[in-house]
Amino acid sequence: MGEVALGGGDLFLVSMVAVIALLALAVAGGLVREVLAAGQGTPRMQQIALAVQEGASAYLKRQFRTVGVFVVLIPLLLLLLPAEGAGVRIGRSVFFVLGALFSGITGFAGMWLAVRGNVRVAAAARDAGERTAMRIAFRTGGVAGMFTVGLGLFGAALVVLVYRGDAPVVLEGFGFGAALLAMFMRVGGGIFTKAADVGADLVGKVEQGIPEDDPRNAATIADNVGDNVGDCAGMAADLFESYAVMLVAALILGGAAFGAQGMVFSLLVPMIGVVTAVIGIFAVTPRARDRSGMTAINRGFFLAAAISAVAVAVAAFLYLPSTFAELDGGVRVDADPRLVAIGAVLTGIVLAGAIQLLTGYFTETNRKPVQEVTQSARTGPATVILSGVALGLESAVYSTLLIAGAIYGAFLLGSGNTTVALFAVALAGTGLLTTVGVIVSMDTFGPVSDNAQGIAEMSGDVNGEAAAVLERLDAVGNTTKAITKGIAIATAVLAATALFGSFRTTVEAALEEASGDAQRAIGAAFLDFNLSVDQPNVLIGLLVGASVVFLFSGLAIMAVGRSAGRVVVEVREQFRTKPGIMDFSERPDYDRVVDLCTRDAQRELITPGLLAILTPIAVGFAFGYAPLGAFLAGAIAAGALMAVFLANSGGAWDNAKKVVEDGSLGGKGSEAHAATVIGDTVGDPFKDTAGPAINPLIKVMNLVSLLIAPAVVAAAGDAVLRAGVTIVVVAVLVAAVVASRHRGAATGAPLPRATRR
Amino acid sequence: MGEVALGGGDLFLVSMVAVIALLALAVAGGLVREVLAAGQGTPRMQQIALAVQEGASAYLKRQFRTVGVFVVLIPLLLLLLPAEGAGVRIGRSVFFVLGALFSGITGFAGMWLAVRGNVRVAAAARDAGERTAMRIAFRTGGVAGMFTVGLGLFGAALVVLVYRGDAPVVLEGFGFGAALLAMFMRVGGGIFTKAADVGADLVGKVEQGIPEDDPRNAATIADNVGDNVGDCAGMAADLFESYAVMLVAALILGGAAFGAQGMVFSLLVPMIGVVTAVIGIFAVTPRARDRSGMTAINRGFFLAAAISAVAVAVAAFLYLPSTFAELDGGVRVDADPRLVAIGAVLTGIVLAGAIQLLTGYFTETNRKPVQEVTQSARTGPATVILSGVALGLESAVYSTLLIAGAIYGAFLLGSGNTTVALFAVALAGTGLLTTVGVIVSMDTFGPVSDNAQGIAEMSGDVNGEAAAVLERLDAVGNTTKAITKGIAIATAVLAATALFGSFRTTVEAALEEASGDAQRAIGAAFLDFNLSVDQPNVLIGLLVGASVVFLFSGLAIMAVGRSAGRVVVEVREQFRTKPGIMDFSERPDYDRVVDLCTRDAQRELITPGLLAILTPIAVGFAFGYAPLGAFLAGAIAAGALMAVFLANSGGAWDNAKKVVEDGSLGGKGSEAHAATVIGDTVGDPFKDTAGPAINPLIKVMNLVSLLIAPAVVAAAGDAVLRAGVTIVVVAVLVAAVVASRHRGAATGAPLPRATRR
Repeated sequence: MGEVALGGGDLFLVSMVAVIALLALAVAGGLVREVLAAGQGTPRMQQIALAVQEGASAYLKRQFRTVGVFVVLIPLLLLLLPAEGAGVRIGRSVFFVLGALFSGITGFAGMWLAVRGNVRVAAAARDAGERTAMRIAFRTGGVAGMFTVGLGLFGAALVVLVYRGDAPVVLEGFGFGAALLAMFMRVGGGIFTKAADVGADLVGKVEQGIPEDDPRNAATIADNVGDNVGDCAGMAADLFESYAVMLVAALILGGAAFGAQGMVFSLLVPMIGVVTAVIGIFAVTPRARDRSGMTAINRGFFLAAAISAVAVAVAAFLYLPSTFAELDGGVRVDADPRLVAIGAVLTGIVLAGAIQLLTGYFTETNRKPVQEVTQSARTGPATVILSGVALGLESAVYSTLLIAGAIYGAFLLGSGNTTVALFAVALAGTGLLTTVGVIVSMDTFGPVSDNAQGIAEMSGDVNGEAAAVLERLDAVGNTTKAITKGIAIATAVLAATALFGSFRTTVEAALEEASGDAQRAIGAAFLDFNLSVDQPNVLIGLLVGASVVFLFSGLAIMAVGRSAGRVVVEVREQFRTKPGIMDFSERPDYDRVVDLCTRDAQRELITPGLLAILTPIAVGFAFGYAPLGAFLAGAIAAGALMAVFLANSGGAWDNAKKVVEDGSLGGKGSEAHAATVIGDTVGDPFKDTAGPAINPLIKVMNLVSLLIAPAVVAAAGDAVLRAGVTIVVVAVLVAAVVASRHRGAATGAPLPRATRR
Repeated sequence: MGEVALGGGDLFLVSMVAVIALLALAVAGGLVREVLAAGQGTPRMQQIALAVQEGASAYLKRQFRTVGVFVVLIPLLLLLLPAEGAGVRIGRSVFFVLGALFSGITGFAGMWLAVRGNVRVAAAARDAGERTAMRIAFRTGGVAGMFTVGLGLFGAALVVLVYRGDAPVVLEGFGFGAALLAMFMRVGGGIFTKAADVGADLVGKVEQGIPEDDPRNAATIADNVGDNVGDCAGMAADLFESYAVMLVAALILGGAAFGAQGMVFSLLVPMIGVVTAVIGIFAVTPRARDRSGMTAINRGFFLAAAISAVAVAVAAFLYLPSTFAELDGGVRVDADPRLVAIGAVLTGIVLAGAIQLLTGYFTETNRKPVQEVTQSARTGPATVILSGVALGLESAVYSTLLIAGAIYGAFLLGSGNTTVALFAVALAGTGLLTTVGVIVSMDTFGPVSDNAQGIAEMSGDVNGEAAAVLERLDAVGNTTKAITKGIAIATAVLAATALFGSFRTTVEAALEEASGDAQRAIGAAFLDFNLSVDQPNVLIGLLVGASVVFLFSGLAIMAVGRSAGRVVVEVREQFRTKPGIMDFSERPDYDRVVDLCTRDAQRELITPGLLAILTPIAVGFAFGYAPLGAFLAGAIAAGALMAVFLANSGGAWDNAKKVVEDGSLGGKGSEAHAATVIGDTVGDPFKDTAGPAINPLIKVMNLVSLLIAPAVVAAAGDAVLRAGVTIVVVAVLVAAVVASRHRGAATGAPLPRATRR
């Protein structure tokens, strides 16, 4: 694809895109100033907020130190992998680092402001009322949103400006860096937040009999830090990665299908998204007659979506020609490229809306599914679990069918040409993500109001109507969080589907170059690119790909359990060695628990992380390129279903608990409440640890496969090399899994007996 | 494949196989006589056993009436589908009925003797001691085992004798009939048994305060009937189906790869299995120095496996030539067919042993995984659920990797030829199933001893050491049941993988015949058979295939919940209208509850059943043959993982409860016990309803796809026909899903509040 030549006009447009991306960062700066200018409440509130800020920075320090090893090592390894031209190869490594850096910055920025916005939201609820509180919360989220789109778009535009026709290979590096860092932040953050949550509850509420969010509990700050670490930093990095990888896929395929205009148009769509996101974020200004906070958010979301749709149509008609023959490069198909582009982007925008409605139906408190889960609490926790599992399985299917429908729509737009079809899939992905700025803002909204509520309760300075305001904001945040997860996994499936095009191109080029030895090893049937799953060895790849998703989920759920046990031990120890904590004469060492959770989260994420990086290498070298392709397909299918299953089961249990707490079936303290609390606890690692990490997992495996594909084809004839790589990689994987199981046994401190909450 | 010509010697051997199959039925007759000759205990015991027998026959009556509709309708529909020659087409329909009939007879026979063996086992435990009790229990299971192998082998041999070279198409009908009936019996039996179980507990133990298995509870008999309906009839039909479909795959591929000798050898392997199963069953005669019942069972299993391995090797050397060139038909590969055949069968036998060990590790009470689940009960039910889910997910991966390893081993034996590789996969499947006679006997052992224990408790006539004997037998039964499920899903994956060969052959023939219109619609890329999953439309098939497994599981779990609610209403009503029940002056109407469960199970199985039959039709006609092939691959991957996940999570929870009941963590009545009871209740529909039904689900979808494949290819150019079929099929599916959700709302009788057991 090196033949795509960008003209002067094209480069000017790409420069424009880069400038607009930087403007998004300027908007973020403005939002930061606005949020920081708000009042910070009472000294007690500020003191608690400071502890959370300390904890968050302790976490980030450690997180970046661990991940730094990978960010240094992997670019060196990337240099060893074949690619055309030394310059491109170096560029790929450099942009890997940049992708990781941008992903980290997005997470950092989102979290940095979230731990400052939280106390200001609490103060506003106390001093200025609901509408101001909500505005601050949403503007806080807006910063993460602007960083996501600004840095993602800027990075992609920069690659195109510098590398032009060679951009695709360099973009793979950029996307891989972003996805890898996001996966670590998602898994690490997810383990941290749930370990702290469960650990704090077990010692504080159960053993010491002190309330939730009591400042005497050394794990309480960690619990509040966790909300930011998981839901802010992890989520922001994750959506940045979704955005970046989607752009990578669109740029690669845009060049192949539409030539130079395809690459530029792939940047114009998200550029429009940046502008409409700004409009959307500022549109979320609550009005007096809004029914709930969700009304204002929906106004912003659907406004941004509608303007995007119109603007994309206008851009397509202004910029794209009416026939494929007039394009600079790309394929020749008898269709109107403008209609293909508009249709694809609209498909994505409609998909975003459909997922929002579907997720809402299955997880909102006032709809039938959550009501049924709530009613099942009459017969105890077992029926709560069963109904939640059944709901999750069913909703995952509908969500997956929606995504499949969008892919099929895009496929039909391809008019029989696979390259055009795949570009249409990628464009649908960019369409889905035009609203990502608003979505990230919506999602960050959740932990910020959750934290605001925590600070309010801990300080005791926010009461009455102000506390009720924060309760309502928190409920809105729960809904937006579930929706974001649905959108995120849809981007993963679309990006992965589109990247099959790059995988094919890469493998085909390598097959042409392969030596006679390699060709004989690949076999005649597979010298034409072919991932036909009726071949037993290809089907094995599929089985392994689906297996990785199951193993990854199981490992993440187990890690939370182990880590929570260690939090219990640490907090107990602090109560023992600092007897003054209970009468407030000594301050617990919050940093120690935060550091423990951080260290644990880092250690626990190694095994799932290695799984993501190494399994494609093992499959590729052991079985060949076709099983590796099927491996990706298996991971996509199992991943889409598992991610939505985990997210929606968890969301439904959480909200069933809320319904009971609002007074149904006896309210707080009833047997039904105890049953739904159990459901919610089961759902915690489902929806906040394992489920959301599947999105970056799929991307990482995809990009690793793409990067190693040429090496896999070249090594086909070298049985010794293949066996060697396979044995080393499998040995490392087995050691990692065994080590993580062993950790469980070694630190198995006896946990306290749970009593009814 | 019509060109395979069986010579006179071949036909003589096949006749021999048929005779030996009939001898297996004669052995079954001998076992029946032996079991029935045993003593039946006290009059009270006999009265209870009679009630269970009445219930079982009430269930069977209804089950066969419902399923009868399908058994009449589908053969007529099959006549409409294209196939070479009217005789073959009629034969396919006739053998569909025969497959269904044999499947039904196997289930019926297994259950008929189980409901008579149960009381005799209880009586033997009371009057004759452990060894006699165990022998009767195992001989009772042996009848189901002998029926499974006898009827399966006889049916397959009959098809070959009558249709010779045309056998493959007719065999598809035979396999489809067997699989469809088995699926209905598995789903129906699974819903019945868990609805009765949960319903009986909720009214009896919770509301009325009467013990489990109290004869005053109208649902108690249904509960005991359920054990037989689910674990005997459903399981026997399921394993018969596995056996029959595996033979179908082996015969089809054997003809293609090895010519006439391939077909005959595919029958010789299971014939050897029949003989060794008889040896194995009679070898399970407990000895005085056996450590536990499991020792005797292992002796039978591994003896049968070892003799099979040796005998198969001898048969291969006696019957097969040393080069492919000497075979009557088949392909020409530079390898020794005898070594290929022996290697493949051994792979299957080793896989059976490996699954047995792996399943044992993850579900036995004295191994680390179940111990960890048990320890998690210290922190309450939520951690029990989480650790069980994590264990299930992880073990599913190892099991799937073992199966994948076996497929890869068989693939390598194919020496680069796909047809030989697929035949090797099928032969591995027959190897796996050489021990099926022993396995079915092992599995039936479970419900028989479970029932024996129930009858003993209800009658109050079996106490002390005799009761302890039955406890021990029940524990052995739990282990064997888990192993059987692992083996069953392995056969599903191997059979489905092998049947891809038939799918390919069928589609290729249809592609050649396709008209110009159809060819244009299929497109140049797909005129060569190709299921390459990088194509977006093919990938969609994969997504839908994996989705069906998730939806099917979710629907089955929901159905159990709904049905249990209706049992509660019925039993309450009987207590109200027959006040004499409580003082034993009136007899509850057991048949009404049994009939209700049966009727409900039949109604609830319609939706999952339609899902299995109609989804492949929708995918095939809407998207084409390649997405249909990928659909099967997606279902295989998701199905293998989901089936083992559900079975092993459920098995581990069940045994964690047993560990606590044996005195750990405070024993019965402790908080830890309550936590594990909740885990066990969640596990019930996992392991006994949704999980085991996935095996026949995969087969049914596979065979439906195979049968409609020619029609799908022929219809490629006819957009109106395709749209019409798709719309009708999807409408029926949506209506079925909506109706099953609506049923839940309409009969949502308020359930009682659960209290701690």
